[in-house]
Amino acid sequence: MWHLPPSNLQKWHLCQSRMVLDNPWCQVRRDTVQLPNGTLIDDYFVNVRPEIVMVLAVTPQREIIFVRQYRHGVQEVLLELPAGTFFPNQESPTAAICRELEEETGYQIVNLLSLGCIYDNPVKDQSRLHLFLATDVTPTGKKAWDITEEIEVVLMPIAVVREQIFSGQIRVAGSVAALLLGLEKLSSLLQHY
Amino acid sequence: MWHLPPSNLQKWHLCQSRMVLDNPWCQVRRDTVQLPNGTLIDDYFVNVRPEIVMVLAVTPQREIIFVRQYRHGVQEVLLELPAGTFFPNQESPTAAICRELEEETGYQIVNLLSLGCIYDNPVKDQSRLHLFLATDVTPTGKKAWDITEEIEVVLMPIAVVREQIFSGQIRVAGSVAALLLGLEKLSSLLQHY
Repeated sequence: MWHLPPSNLQKWHLCQSRMVLDNPWCQVRRDTVQLPNGTLIDDYFVNVRPEIVMVLAVTPQREIIFVRQYRHGVQEVLLELPAGTFFPNQESPTAAICRELEEETGYQIVNLLSLGCIYDNPVKDQSRLHLFLATDVTPTGKKAWDITEEIEVVLMPIAVVREQIFSGQIRVAGSVAALLLGLEKLSSLLQHY
Repeated sequence: MWHLPPSNLQKWHLCQSRMVLDNPWCQVRRDTVQLPNGTLIDDYFVNVRPEIVMVLAVTPQREIIFVRQYRHGVQEVLLELPAGTFFPNQESPTAAICRELEEETGYQIVNLLSLGCIYDNPVKDQSRLHLFLATDVTPTGKKAWDITEEIEVVLMPIAVVREQIFSGQIRVAGSVAALLLGLEKLSSLLQHY
């Protein structure tokens, strides 16, 4: 069995941290850090963002629920897995993903499995992406969109998802990672259906 | 054959854009946008960041090259695929990934294939992640690190990469997505070796 070699890397020492942009929709921190080699850096910027939940949600008809939205960061309409932000001191990741899926798509979660946590951009952001797999989601029709949300729900048969990823129809790192991780888990579950 | 249903979504209209944080290491834009329903929003923030190149680089011994580094955004040591930033008006993605791989790991690219482009966070950032697959990379030993870089190069046999991903050893969305996309491509290439 192969083992990852141990690391000799040390963390940086955080000397000071100041908020340089503090708007409800955008918070940026400027850190002074000392590197293990002694170097002081006084302009390391980190985006302070809420945590994110994302779900690979599967209907009893073996379709995966996607959301299509205009994304202003890249000024494109993109196909992604349902996801949303939450504050861990106010809500658990499980509660957050149940709320987000129903708000965005009108589907309710019955069975939920964690697929672990990943990072979007650990260099510049501190937020985590909590990934879930939900099977047998059921429609309630109770959507609730924010003012900036206009969402198309797309149901995609599981059988075509891989070809849609490989042909470039799904182009957001978190969704691609969650899909490929979740499809592996799902294929082992579906054998027991 | 399944086809993605067409979208009726419209892009937002960008009315005005101002830089509210303009440091060489961190640039944030505040946009005024008009939504298709007429709503005006004057505080939509977007991080202006350089483009990114990332490579799944394979040695003739069928090992994948990883880099392990301290990442100050999340204050952890993480295992990722080699990657770096570049400015499209100064350098092509291909030139950038050849430079970055050699600088970070001391390996040179011989054969290079594009795996397409994905986005890290299309909601808040505008940068793209250009993914590549490089086979038969050869060691030159010519590393060149920036002042903030201290990198451990980890060679991982292809045969164990999937289990390392699924056991949570690789936890950055872009790397997970690139690995799973690239391993599929690689397995079809390796049949021809």
